[in-house]
Amino acid sequence: MIENTEQRTELSKLGEFGLIHHLTKDIKLYDNNTIKGVGDDAAVIRGGDKLILMSTDLLVEGIHFDLSYYPLKHLGYKAAVVNISDIIAMNGTPRQLTVSVAVSNRFPVEALEEIYEGIRLACDHYKVDLVGGDTSASHKGLILSLSILGDVAEDEVVYRSTAAEGDLLCVSGDLGGAYMGLMLLEREKQVFKADPSMQPDLDGFDYILERQLKPEARADIINHLRINKIKPSSMIDISDGLASEALHLCTESALGCAIYEEKIPIDVITADMAREFGMEPAIAALNGGEDYELLFTVKQQDYEKVSIIPGVCIIGHMTAAAEGARLIGRDGGVVPLVAQGWDAFN
Amino acid sequence: MIENTEQRTELSKLGEFGLIHHLTKDIKLYDNNTIKGVGDDAAVIRGGDKLILMSTDLLVEGIHFDLSYYPLKHLGYKAAVVNISDIIAMNGTPRQLTVSVAVSNRFPVEALEEIYEGIRLACDHYKVDLVGGDTSASHKGLILSLSILGDVAEDEVVYRSTAAEGDLLCVSGDLGGAYMGLMLLEREKQVFKADPSMQPDLDGFDYILERQLKPEARADIINHLRINKIKPSSMIDISDGLASEALHLCTESALGCAIYEEKIPIDVITADMAREFGMEPAIAALNGGEDYELLFTVKQQDYEKVSIIPGVCIIGHMTAAAEGARLIGRDGGVVPLVAQGWDAFN
Repeated sequence: MIENTEQRTELSKLGEFGLIHHLTKDIKLYDNNTIKGVGDDAAVIRGGDKLILMSTDLLVEGIHFDLSYYPLKHLGYKAAVVNISDIIAMNGTPRQLTVSVAVSNRFPVEALEEIYEGIRLACDHYKVDLVGGDTSASHKGLILSLSILGDVAEDEVVYRSTAAEGDLLCVSGDLGGAYMGLMLLEREKQVFKADPSMQPDLDGFDYILERQLKPEARADIINHLRINKIKPSSMIDISDGLASEALHLCTESALGCAIYEEKIPIDVITADMAREFGMEPAIAALNGGEDYELLFTVKQQDYEKVSIIPGVCIIGHMTAAAEGARLIGRDGGVVPLVAQGWDAFN
Repeated sequence: MIENTEQRTELSKLGEFGLIHHLTKDIKLYDNNTIKGVGDDAAVIRGGDKLILMSTDLLVEGIHFDLSYYPLKHLGYKAAVVNISDIIAMNGTPRQLTVSVAVSNRFPVEALEEIYEGIRLACDHYKVDLVGGDTSASHKGLILSLSILGDVAEDEVVYRSTAAEGDLLCVSGDLGGAYMGLMLLEREKQVFKADPSMQPDLDGFDYILERQLKPEARADIINHLRINKIKPSSMIDISDGLASEALHLCTESALGCAIYEEKIPIDVITADMAREFGMEPAIAALNGGEDYELLFTVKQQDYEKVSIIPGVCIIGHMTAAAEGARLIGRDGGVVPLVAQGWDAFN
């Protein structure tokens, strides 16, 4: 069948987001209860007096993770967190998870036990129920596909598309750490390959390693916002880098934005490691993925309330679409924000 | 990590169902709204005045399908139907679907368009909303992971575990056709491989080819049952063969069963093709998978009502667990029912 296809457009031409858009445009919806389909962190479905949130993520060995340094238990934990984070990013509460695994026969049962142990730890931590799944053989490698359900009160749900001009752009935690952890693990893998007698030099880098190997979803930030009676005007989780996610908010809300480089929160170990790799720390934050922090906007009148939430930084504001998405450098120079985040097809 | 695992138990030792059971036993559930987790066709979650049903299925190239004869549009259609059938088997209505695809770069965008076209056809036919998903590169082949939501009124949901002794065992449609279609396609592939000038000889076999390449979920049977005011006492869809599914009903309901070979519905083309392959037609029905018919039990007092539903056959009844799961042959001989259905790990 593949050979017979007359026209051939390479997947890399569209890229991951372009491909999803291309395949799912013009979709017809039948159920009046389907409020939001493709295009946000989760689908939104009316269910009684609440909204049901549904999301799914795929993790492929060799594309999303390298088992030569990624412990299986951590992989299971992270796979669950990635899904949980999608529900959190809608301002929702994660509830039920399904897990599908395809594995080649090079994996013993004990390897799957490790993965499930990690998933279970995440389920315990976030109080999520593992309710089903599927297992299959694969010809090569390990593939994890998780789907999650959550819920949220109708007046609490937060979309990507509802930011307004002048809203403050905020981010939780610090950025770029997961990417620097990955760079470090990759470097030590190459060193080990070149000389197997070398022991990996990971001392003092616990923070960025943990950012990569054991990310957390920011349920705590959602709680802080709720306690402080702040409802974000828009929100997304940072899985592909700050630049890519800020551009999603801009596109979906039909706005531009201004982000101030000096305001982007970067941990000192992340910054040191970036410089060691000859990279501006801000580049790691803008383009490095997998931090699973929250990027959200709040009304200007919430400025004081949001300022006191620990671990939240105001990094800019939303502008008219005509102004574009801009990064204002430390020197006052302005450059357009470009998504150079991670793309599975590139 | 894999090399370091001290103990090594081969996946094939547990098999697919054993593995799922092994990995998901002792799972703790946190949400009071989670009514049923692992162990039925779908998870069941309370959502307002209805129950939400959630299920997921994984299809792996080379394990579940062979693209040398499986058209991509049909594959998409079937992937959706497999999931829809899980919701139907809970006596529910399918509502929302997510689709995740991992593909190697040998696939062009046009190939994915074909798959999505098939998924969309199924969504149109069953009035299901495609609401999300994920795409990724893969190192080898094509992997589809679909998750589905459905709903059902609380007093309408049907589990595998609620059959009672004496209940009549019923099946919709006819069985073994999808398996015989697969055998035929595999045979013609081998013929073609041996001599590429040979054209596949598929004339007159439309029925079994359609059973394999374009299966349908039996939403019509569910409607008939509802119209005739019959609520099955238990139900499952037949994805892995009659024997395997009947044993699931027995195990989950803590019962035995008696199935009469002469009552098993088999189409004449299925039977002819089975004999051509030197196989008893009943074996194709018992062990051949992918028919996606419904296997269900009803109370004896529903005998007359269920008898008049077109396309439903009564093939036996449920017994005490001590009597075991038995097949009564045409000659009156009794053999234990054994699941020799399809297992991805064997």
